[in-house]
Amino acid sequence: MSSLPTGPLYAQVESVLASEIASGSLKPGDRLPSEDELLARFNVSRITIRRAIQNLILRNLVEIHRGKGTFVAQPKITQELTELSGFVEDMENLGRKPTARLIEKKIVHADEIVARHLRLTKGERVVRIHRVRLADSVPISFDETYLPLEIGRKIVTNNLTVKPIFSLLERKYNIPLVEAEYKLEAVAAEANVASALDIKPGSPIFRIERTSYSTGSQPVDYERLSYRGDLIRFVTRLARKPSR
Amino acid sequence: MSSLPTGPLYAQVESVLASEIASGSLKPGDRLPSEDELLARFNVSRITIRRAIQNLILRNLVEIHRGKGTFVAQPKITQELTELSGFVEDMENLGRKPTARLIEKKIVHADEIVARHLRLTKGERVVRIHRVRLADSVPISFDETYLPLEIGRKIVTNNLTVKPIFSLLERKYNIPLVEAEYKLEAVAAEANVASALDIKPGSPIFRIERTSYSTGSQPVDYERLSYRGDLIRFVTRLARKPSR
Repeated sequence: MSSLPTGPLYAQVESVLASEIASGSLKPGDRLPSEDELLARFNVSRITIRRAIQNLILRNLVEIHRGKGTFVAQPKITQELTELSGFVEDMENLGRKPTARLIEKKIVHADEIVARHLRLTKGERVVRIHRVRLADSVPISFDETYLPLEIGRKIVTNNLTVKPIFSLLERKYNIPLVEAEYKLEAVAAEANVASALDIKPGSPIFRIERTSYSTGSQPVDYERLSYRGDLIRFVTRLARKPSR
Repeated sequence: MSSLPTGPLYAQVESVLASEIASGSLKPGDRLPSEDELLARFNVSRITIRRAIQNLILRNLVEIHRGKGTFVAQPKITQELTELSGFVEDMENLGRKPTARLIEKKIVHADEIVARHLRLTKGERVVRIHRVRLADSVPISFDETYLPLEIGRKIVTNNLTVKPIFSLLERKYNIPLVEAEYKLEAVAAEANVASALDIKPGSPIFRIERTSYSTGSQPVDYERLSYRGDLIRFVTRLARKPSR
């Protein structure tokens, strides 16, 4: 081991472990050595080790898996939430390779929620598409997409593992997207979402319900996006209302 | 029981239960009758009962508490995320009564994260304030606020159970707020957050990290807001970039 950096002891231990993570000698998913192993290695007090680990947790470099130990975390993808954009655009902007697995495409009857968002009558037929979206081969999001029947039938004739629905709508079918309403929630992963994303049921999910509108405020696409909470973070900037 | 509405059987059962929730004869937190009780009451098939309950879940009217049963959900607070605003302003806009419990106010040394957001040096002293924010007496959010030492020392001389920090900054101390950077995540409640909000550790938390800036892009307030995921939803609208 190279010599310790200067500063308080806990900061030295923290810094050594952080550089091992940065250099890749400790990789995402690796178990961090136990407290006892770190005690022996660094020859410092248990409270010092704990403080160092606590700081690594605060820095999102490691995470506790309840009952299993402390593991090197996957770095979170930090994605702008400032304009209407699709998964492929988002990941390409971040220099990550987007892919998709098509789980299902099906004509279903709109339930009350789908009908309300697409401004249809409950029970009307719509096209539902289930996909898992991946970035650099890691499943990031489970997407349920609902499209009005007419355009949906055209969309599903395309290869949805490679064609983004947004670009099909805009470029192939000349349906411009103008804006979208976003609803953002933190929820526990339901069984089907957990299974699609290969995580435990109950894991934190960043849920986006998005209704995209074309010209004339016509809703054209209603989506329920379930992002792995441990893999993504959204950022935006908001201004203070001037007139307070 | 009044006569069933028309439509498919599951929709009739769904509609009866939804009106009992709307009328308050089933209240938030009430256990929904078991499948067997509903079978006996409505005299329909188990699959019909299940489909009805599934739809109530999708409508966020009821929720499954793992291993315990299905319960009438607290309706989520739907809050705009379109401008920089504080908890008191948000809740007053929604017609809810905001209150606060002051958990702690303390001078601490900025860790790396706090220092970076307030543009200070790690280890510099800052004022840390822990509060639980309530709406109509229900704990909604656990807030950790970090303020630079000079202004923080003034802020904590006020009664923070009634005075919002934003209005103290702006009105009492003439520090205008201009804009803020928001980081949004879905995380599992840590032990201290769970305890402050009286929820189970691991419950979904909508985490907002917010750095508010005054004139000259001067950071004046760094907050870690932990909202109960089961009680809040944020909404915004985003425009499509015109130049695609």
